[in-house]
Amino acid sequence: MSNGKTTAKIRLFVEHPLAQGQSVPLDRDQAHYLFGVMRLASGDGVLLFNGRDGEFLANVEDAGKRGGSLICAERTRPLQPPPDLWLLFAPIKKARTDFIVEKAAEMGAARICPVQTDFTNSERIRRDRLQAHAVEAAEQCGGTFVPDVTDLTRLSAMLDQWPSDRRLMFCDEERAGEGLGLRDAAPGPWAILIGPEGGFSAGERTRLAAMPQAVPVSLGPRILRADTAAVAAITVWQQALGDWR
Amino acid sequence: MSNGKTTAKIRLFVEHPLAQGQSVPLDRDQAHYLFGVMRLASGDGVLLFNGRDGEFLANVEDAGKRGGSLICAERTRPLQPPPDLWLLFAPIKKARTDFIVEKAAEMGAARICPVQTDFTNSERIRRDRLQAHAVEAAEQCGGTFVPDVTDLTRLSAMLDQWPSDRRLMFCDEERAGEGLGLRDAAPGPWAILIGPEGGFSAGERTRLAAMPQAVPVSLGPRILRADTAAVAAITVWQQALGDWR
Repeated sequence: MSNGKTTAKIRLFVEHPLAQGQSVPLDRDQAHYLFGVMRLASGDGVLLFNGRDGEFLANVEDAGKRGGSLICAERTRPLQPPPDLWLLFAPIKKARTDFIVEKAAEMGAARICPVQTDFTNSERIRRDRLQAHAVEAAEQCGGTFVPDVTDLTRLSAMLDQWPSDRRLMFCDEERAGEGLGLRDAAPGPWAILIGPEGGFSAGERTRLAAMPQAVPVSLGPRILRADTAAVAAITVWQQALGDWR
Repeated sequence: MSNGKTTAKIRLFVEHPLAQGQSVPLDRDQAHYLFGVMRLASGDGVLLFNGRDGEFLANVEDAGKRGGSLICAERTRPLQPPPDLWLLFAPIKKARTDFIVEKAAEMGAARICPVQTDFTNSERIRRDRLQAHAVEAAEQCGGTFVPDVTDLTRLSAMLDQWPSDRRLMFCDEERAGEGLGLRDAAPGPWAILIGPEGGFSAGERTRLAAMPQAVPVSLGPRILRADTAAVAAITVWQQALGDWR
């Protein structure tokens, strides 16, 4: 039996409930990763989280080629839920889309919503692949929460049913250089909307401007790529209204 | 002769001085790109910038296979110099290092300094390749300035000669969750220092803590990857002290 502390750097997301003394079954992929790739043996330690119960140190109970189980020892970190922040963005090139999902999960967004705008080129996304990116970001960055990645939805359809109490920070390139708009804003349910590389259409712009929930915000005098804008916008929001205050 | 407006979306960085009526010679690579790849012909328009003189609309004067020239018409944008901000970071994996350089150039850093820390794995970088990334970011994002990427330098050697008037925003993972440190800070020469993936060594931490120029700043309660931290830190600084105010 090797020292649990030396191997407890492995962090694994599981769906199963976690509690002290709880046995957690492993599926084939997880067993392959822990026992085949990482060479863990009985008694070795792993950190587990499921997005709901915090992080637990767990030790290998049963190590098999096609399955196995871990048993939870003590809770090592409480759940750290993110603020009630959604990130809406128009999917762009694959690498930059992956990057936006990874960064939103790292920085503390509660939900990630790919949206189709008038000028979005992407007709479809691989939701499962993006969700896996969010899981991986949490695994690697010590996160205890994983934001849901929703299906690609038309922005206009989302705006049709937009909750009246959820403010929408709308990053508008055309307002580059104007003052930031969050100074007098209050915390609560919020969303950030990042436009596509080609910008918003005139129709979208008019519609957003007419929404009482919308708050246009400038991200400085330079044109930023959509992935840069996403990270900068989450930073601005987290500092002003989120849990970076 | 085609309409200059339709092709003037191409933005090209050149070393040559720019002024109205100025003829600008093209090297072989530039001629290949403009005439071979982009199929420009005599009279077509291109936007030029050199990091010093702003942006000019220029028209093709001479289109050859191995060279050619453009002639500057009117200036389309003034030079927009960044604030006096350096970004110091420890190079990590290639894709994330490229990303940090691209983002720093996009967001308005004046100088980009790869540094070797006690826990940096990278022994060398391709400075010319990173500089080309900074140029490309400016070309694609409408920038008129290109930050210099300096050679890889030991952090300790830089700190030995650190200018007394340049403040150093030091992003310290161990201060995660503490208050941000820029509230009472004043503009002027600044640098941001992003630690390596393995964090700073105890020696580096002690040394930084003893520097009167150093200002420790927290980037929220979550652990961020180095590339995320770089974008978030530039955002925080630009909003508090830079030209996003």
